[in-house]
Amino acid sequence: MRLLSSLLLAGLLAGGLPAVTQAQTAPATFTKTDSLTLRKFYDEALLRGQSYENLRYLCEKIGGRLAGSPQAAQAVAWGKLTMEKAACFDKVYLQECQVPHWVRGAKEKGQVFGNKGKGVPMAVCALGGSVATPGNKPLRAGVVEVKTLAELKALPDAAVKGKFVFFNRPFDDALIEPGAAYGGAGDQRRSGPAEAGRRGAVGALVRSLTSARDNNPHTGTTSYGDTPTKVPGAALSTLAADQLSQLLKADPSLQFELEMSCQTLPDVTSYNVIGEVRGSKYPDQIITVGGHLDSWDLAQGAHDDGTGVVQSIEAVRLLKAAGLRPERTVRAVLFMNEENGTRGGNKYAEQAKQNNETHVAAIESDGGGFTPRGFNVESTPAVFKKVAAWGPLLAPYHANELTPGHSGTDIEPLVGAVHPTALFGYDCDSQRYFDIHHTAADTFDKVNRRELELGGASMASLIYLLSKYGLQ
Amino acid sequence: MRLLSSLLLAGLLAGGLPAVTQAQTAPATFTKTDSLTLRKFYDEALLRGQSYENLRYLCEKIGGRLAGSPQAAQAVAWGKLTMEKAACFDKVYLQECQVPHWVRGAKEKGQVFGNKGKGVPMAVCALGGSVATPGNKPLRAGVVEVKTLAELKALPDAAVKGKFVFFNRPFDDALIEPGAAYGGAGDQRRSGPAEAGRRGAVGALVRSLTSARDNNPHTGTTSYGDTPTKVPGAALSTLAADQLSQLLKADPSLQFELEMSCQTLPDVTSYNVIGEVRGSKYPDQIITVGGHLDSWDLAQGAHDDGTGVVQSIEAVRLLKAAGLRPERTVRAVLFMNEENGTRGGNKYAEQAKQNNETHVAAIESDGGGFTPRGFNVESTPAVFKKVAAWGPLLAPYHANELTPGHSGTDIEPLVGAVHPTALFGYDCDSQRYFDIHHTAADTFDKVNRRELELGGASMASLIYLLSKYGLQ
Repeated sequence: MRLLSSLLLAGLLAGGLPAVTQAQTAPATFTKTDSLTLRKFYDEALLRGQSYENLRYLCEKIGGRLAGSPQAAQAVAWGKLTMEKAACFDKVYLQECQVPHWVRGAKEKGQVFGNKGKGVPMAVCALGGSVATPGNKPLRAGVVEVKTLAELKALPDAAVKGKFVFFNRPFDDALIEPGAAYGGAGDQRRSGPAEAGRRGAVGALVRSLTSARDNNPHTGTTSYGDTPTKVPGAALSTLAADQLSQLLKADPSLQFELEMSCQTLPDVTSYNVIGEVRGSKYPDQIITVGGHLDSWDLAQGAHDDGTGVVQSIEAVRLLKAAGLRPERTVRAVLFMNEENGTRGGNKYAEQAKQNNETHVAAIESDGGGFTPRGFNVESTPAVFKKVAAWGPLLAPYHANELTPGHSGTDIEPLVGAVHPTALFGYDCDSQRYFDIHHTAADTFDKVNRRELELGGASMASLIYLLSKYGLQ
Repeated sequence: MRLLSSLLLAGLLAGGLPAVTQAQTAPATFTKTDSLTLRKFYDEALLRGQSYENLRYLCEKIGGRLAGSPQAAQAVAWGKLTMEKAACFDKVYLQECQVPHWVRGAKEKGQVFGNKGKGVPMAVCALGGSVATPGNKPLRAGVVEVKTLAELKALPDAAVKGKFVFFNRPFDDALIEPGAAYGGAGDQRRSGPAEAGRRGAVGALVRSLTSARDNNPHTGTTSYGDTPTKVPGAALSTLAADQLSQLLKADPSLQFELEMSCQTLPDVTSYNVIGEVRGSKYPDQIITVGGHLDSWDLAQGAHDDGTGVVQSIEAVRLLKAAGLRPERTVRAVLFMNEENGTRGGNKYAEQAKQNNETHVAAIESDGGGFTPRGFNVESTPAVFKKVAAWGPLLAPYHANELTPGHSGTDIEPLVGAVHPTALFGYDCDSQRYFDIHHTAADTFDKVNRRELELGGASMASLIYLLSKYGLQ
C-alpha cells in the first residue's frame, strides 16, 4: 500500500471518529462525557501506556513463572512493586494461598525406534502435573494410536497393555474461533494419561493442542483424578505427531522411547497480588479486574498471561490518569496458579465470601494481548441488554463485540461464593493465540505494543462504565 | 489460559454459529443458501486453502519485486502459472504496460559527524524514485530539523541552503487507525525532498512512517513533480530520527553524511496478470478482484502485497471449489507497479474503457493479510445500504464491518473510466501493518496462515454476493 490511499482515508477520518457502523439498537444509556472519557483512556494508553514496558520486564527479566517456582515468587514481588509504582491504588496487598509445585526436571526426550534400531528424535515435552518415567529412566514401548477417549475405551486390553497410547486428534481447523477448537481437542491432554493408565498402558503421548504446523510441543495440565496408576504423559509437536502417525502406518510394531524426570514437590506458600481503589460513592460495591501472574515454565508467559496482568494494572492507572476516582471500588487482582490449580482464584472467592463482600462485576483478561474485539459476558439477559447498550461507545475502537460467553477461570469461583451480577472476559483477536500457547514461543516479541495498549484502554472503558452506572 | 475455559466456550458454540450480535438493521436480502455457501468458502479456506503456500513461494523463492526488476518479471510468470494451476479460470492472460525502473544501487549509508570527527552510523534507506548523492559520492552537510512542510516554508533561505532538511514529524499514535496516522505524516516523504530541493537544500532526511520504535528504515515513493533541482531523499529509522534530533539539540552544527547510488533506468515492458471466469447469466457484467504483484525491494513484499495477490486468486478458487460458476464475470487481476506509478491500474482501467466494458464492482486487498474486519465501500448511499444488509452473513466470521471509505489505489482508476457501481477495499486488523510496511521486515514469517485464509474466504463471500445479486 502506498501513500495516496491512506491520505484519502485520513481525509475521511479527519471529520471525527469513525461512525458507529454496527448499530446496537438498544436505547443509549450513556452521555457525551462518557464518550470523551473513553477517548482519554485510549489517548493515554496509545501515547503514554505503561503495559508494554511492564510486560517487557515481566517476560525478559523474570520469565516463565509456574506456581511454586522461584520465578513465581519474583513475579509476586514485581507485581506488588509495579502496582505501587503505578500510583493509582489506595492500597496494594498480598493474599496468601497454598499452591502446587510441579517441576519439569532436566530430562525430557522422545524418540522412535523402528526396524533399523536407530532412534528418530521427536519434539516432546512433559504435560504439567505428569509423573516421570519410572526411575527417571528411558521407557520404551510400542504405540497404539487413537483419535478419541472413546476409541481407547473400545480397544481390547491386549491392544493397550504395556504400550503408549498416542492421542492424535487434531484441532478442528474449520472452526472460526480457535478457542472452540482448543476446547474440542482438549480432553486428550486433560484425561488422556489418566485413561491410558487405567487401561494398563505405560504412558500417553498427546498431539499438541494447536492449528500450527511446527515443532513446538505445547504443555498444559493433565489430571490423574483418582486413577490408581499414574503413567507419564507427554505432548508431541504437531509435526512430530504427524510423523509418528506416518511411521506407525508403515511399521505398527515400532517402539517409542520417552524419558522424563518431572515431579510434584510439596505445596508452596504463594500469593495473589491485589491493588484496590476505594469507590467514592459506593465503596462497598466491588469491581474486580484481573489476569494470572503464573505461567507455564517453557517460555516467558507473554500472551498467557503476562498481557492480562499488565493490562489489569494499566486499566486502573488509566482511570487515575483521566483524573477519575471510580464511584465503586475497583480491585486489580494478579491471580496465582491459574495454569495448574486455580488456587488463587479460589482463595480470592473464598475470602470475598468470608468478608461478606458485594461484587458487582469482574473482568478477566486471559486470551492473549491481541487487538480488541470486545467482551464476553456472563449475566442474565436483562443485564446483558444494559451492557450491550454501551456498544456504540466502544465501536470507534473496534471493541464493541459484546457477546454472551465465557469470562475467565480465575473469576468464575466468585459465582458460587458472592454471586456477582456479571462476569466479563476480555475478547481479542485470537487467530494467533494457540500457535504459541503453552510453548517456548510465548515470548515478549510476539506482543504488539499498540494491540496490547488498546486492550488495557478497552478494559478501563468497561470498568469506568460499570463503576459509574452499576448493573441494576 | 487453560482448558476448562475453552471447553465451556466450545459448549457454547456447539449449538451453532455464533449469534449475529451486531445487528445490521436493514431488511435481510439473502437466503439460507447464501449462509451455507459462505460457510463452504470458509471451510475450504481453513481446511484446504492454498493462499499460504502460494505466498510462501512468492515471498521466499522470488522475494522483493519492484516494477521493472527481474524479480517482477519472475512474479508475472509465477502469477500466470499459479492462476493456471488453480484451475478455476476460463482464461488467464497478460496485459502489457510500461513501468518505471528505479534501482536502489549498492551504496546506501548515513552517518552523523559531531565535534569528535568520528561518524555515528544511522539506519537509512533511499526513498523510491530518489536520485543518488552527486557522483554516487558521500555528501556531507549540516542539518535543519522541521516538523512540517509549512515549517520549512517559513524558514529563511540561509537556514536551509546547503543543508539537509530533516523532516521529523512522528505518527500521531493516538489515532486508532494506523492508516490515518500514515496519511497524516506522509507528505514529508512524498514531497519533502522536492520541497527541500526547491529551497536550496542538498538533500532530505525523512523520519520513517511508522509507530514502531526500531531500526528499520521504511522506503516508499517520493515525487519530484516539476522541481528543477532534484536532491536525494532518504528515510531514517524512527530510532535514528530520535537520535539525530537529540544530537542536533546538543550540537546544532553537526554534519550528516549521506551516500546513495540509486538511479532511474529507462521504462520496462511489464504486465498485469489476469484470470477470468465468464459469468453464467450476465457475462458482460464484470466484477474485479485484485492485489498488486509488485513490491518494494527491501524484503519479500509479504503483507504488501503478496497477501492481496494470493487472496485474489484464492477467492476465485473458492467459488469453483464450492461448485459454483458466478452469474457475473469475475476477473482476478494481479496489478503491476502499484508502489511507484500505478501504471498497471491505469492500464487496466484504460483498456476497460476502450473495450466499453460494464463494471459492476471491484475489490482490492492491499492493507495486509491480517484477521478480517470487513470492507470499506465507495458507493452511493443507496448502494451502500444494499451492501450493508449483507453484514449479518459475514458476522460469524467477524468480517461484517462494512464502512464507507477508501477502496484501493489500483481499482480507483476505474471510476473515471467505466464508472463501476461500487468499489471495495478489503479491511483487516491493521495494528501491525505499519510496523513492517516498506521495510526489510515485511517477510513471510509475519503472515499467519489462518488470518490470511480467512481473508480470502471473506473476499470470496463478497464476490459471490455481488455476482449473485448485483448492485442495482
